[in-house]
Amino acid sequence: MGNPNDSSDEPASKKSRTEAPTQLSKDVENKLTAALSTQEELEKLHQEATNEVLAVEQKYSKLKKPLFEKRDKELKHIPGFWSTAFQNHPVIAQLMMELDQQILSHVTELEIEDLEDIKTGFKISMRFSENEFFSNDLLVKTLKYDLSKGDAKTECTEVNWKPGQEEKVTDASNLFMWFTATESLDDGPDEVASQIKDSLYMDAIRFFKNELTEEEMYNRDMDDMEGIGESDDDDDEDGDGGSDGGEEEEDDDEA
Amino acid sequence: MGNPNDSSDEPASKKSRTEAPTQLSKDVENKLTAALSTQEELEKLHQEATNEVLAVEQKYSKLKKPLFEKRDKELKHIPGFWSTAFQNHPVIAQLMMELDQQILSHVTELEIEDLEDIKTGFKISMRFSENEFFSNDLLVKTLKYDLSKGDAKTECTEVNWKPGQEEKVTDASNLFMWFTATESLDDGPDEVASQIKDSLYMDAIRFFKNELTEEEMYNRDMDDMEGIGESDDDDDEDGDGGSDGGEEEEDDDEA
Repeated sequence: MGNPNDSSDEPASKKSRTEAPTQLSKDVENKLTAALSTQEELEKLHQEATNEVLAVEQKYSKLKKPLFEKRDKELKHIPGFWSTAFQNHPVIAQLMMELDQQILSHVTELEIEDLEDIKTGFKISMRFSENEFFSNDLLVKTLKYDLSKGDAKTECTEVNWKPGQEEKVTDASNLFMWFTATESLDDGPDEVASQIKDSLYMDAIRFFKNELTEEEMYNRDMDDMEGIGESDDDDDEDGDGGSDGGEEEEDDDEA
Repeated sequence: MGNPNDSSDEPASKKSRTEAPTQLSKDVENKLTAALSTQEELEKLHQEATNEVLAVEQKYSKLKKPLFEKRDKELKHIPGFWSTAFQNHPVIAQLMMELDQQILSHVTELEIEDLEDIKTGFKISMRFSENEFFSNDLLVKTLKYDLSKGDAKTECTEVNWKPGQEEKVTDASNLFMWFTATESLDDGPDEVASQIKDSLYMDAIRFFKNELTEEEMYNRDMDDMEGIGESDDDDDEDGDGGSDGGEEEEDDDEA
């Protein structure tokens, strides 16, 4: 059969793992070359598809913007709106410690805005009422994707802490510390940011009213699948992911 | 400030988590009602966006199909093509045990095809040369998404085992057992299926030649992000995820 791995009596060992290319015969090289030119056509199509999808999303991002602004202006006068929505979101709630709840009870406005070119990122802005922790009335976290390197950079407004508060909050908060963190992520999008943008912000009123069923959460997920093959394993979104107010999100199976 | 969570002296306890709706004043109810009608407009737009994105993907899925068929016909005559590609894929390789390598060395053709309505799933077909394990020359795994329930069903051709092989393979293979498994998944798309469809199949030649750099892998990921907010935490794709041929894929931090 001519298959080099086909000696079924002995295990197909790892010896051939990286050696294959150097062992290629002229004949195989020719076949590969033909296949490669087809592959290039495929990749061109793939890139076109990606661009078209982005154009659609860009168009809708612009259409949605004034509606989000209108909604958020309406929500602004509902006391404790955002902290309640945070507390009722199954994934976000897991990241919240008591001090996070205290700090976020001062959020009067939350806004999420795509960057001009949506492919390059978005920013999350939070307005705060006067509070004991810091003097900023606006904090903005920006997530910027570096498409050439495939990683993401985050920036955040510097926090003007009130005396003694920085140490206290650093030690006893989680979600707020995530919000102010500015490390770069070498793994593409940030899970928490995605949850806030695509789930919490999108469905804010339902989270506030605590009326999103598990099934609806799943359906949202499926809506967002779009590419269908996209990997999307937010296992915790079913809300049974364990303790509240805990440390980082982690897998359930720590056996 | 009128914020019910705003008593900063005592911790914002969980007491308000689900009680909020019942405590709403008439005034707040009115504001919520206004915001809800804006929210409905937003959701309509979101649904339109999703439909448009799917239409784009459906269109390109059709355009790509004859090219994939052409490429796969060209690859068919390269000995050990698919088993080498499998072995060189950093995520898939982790699922492969020695017996998986033996079985998959018999794969002569791999084909992935979207279902008519791409939103409902896809199928993975593998053609096998004659082998000691089973008599099927074609096995097809189908992943079907149930959009109303938000889960996925998998089906697979029944394997016609040769005598004594079923027990042997069940005990000592991993990727092949995944392929033939038919349990339904209540968490949407299947991670392994996604890796095979969007990464291994798409970039098969590069995996065969083992020339995809880590950076390119990341860029692929970013390409596939599309929605940018999409969660996509295939941490293992950096290829440093530990031992080969091991059990299930798992997180690196088993400390």
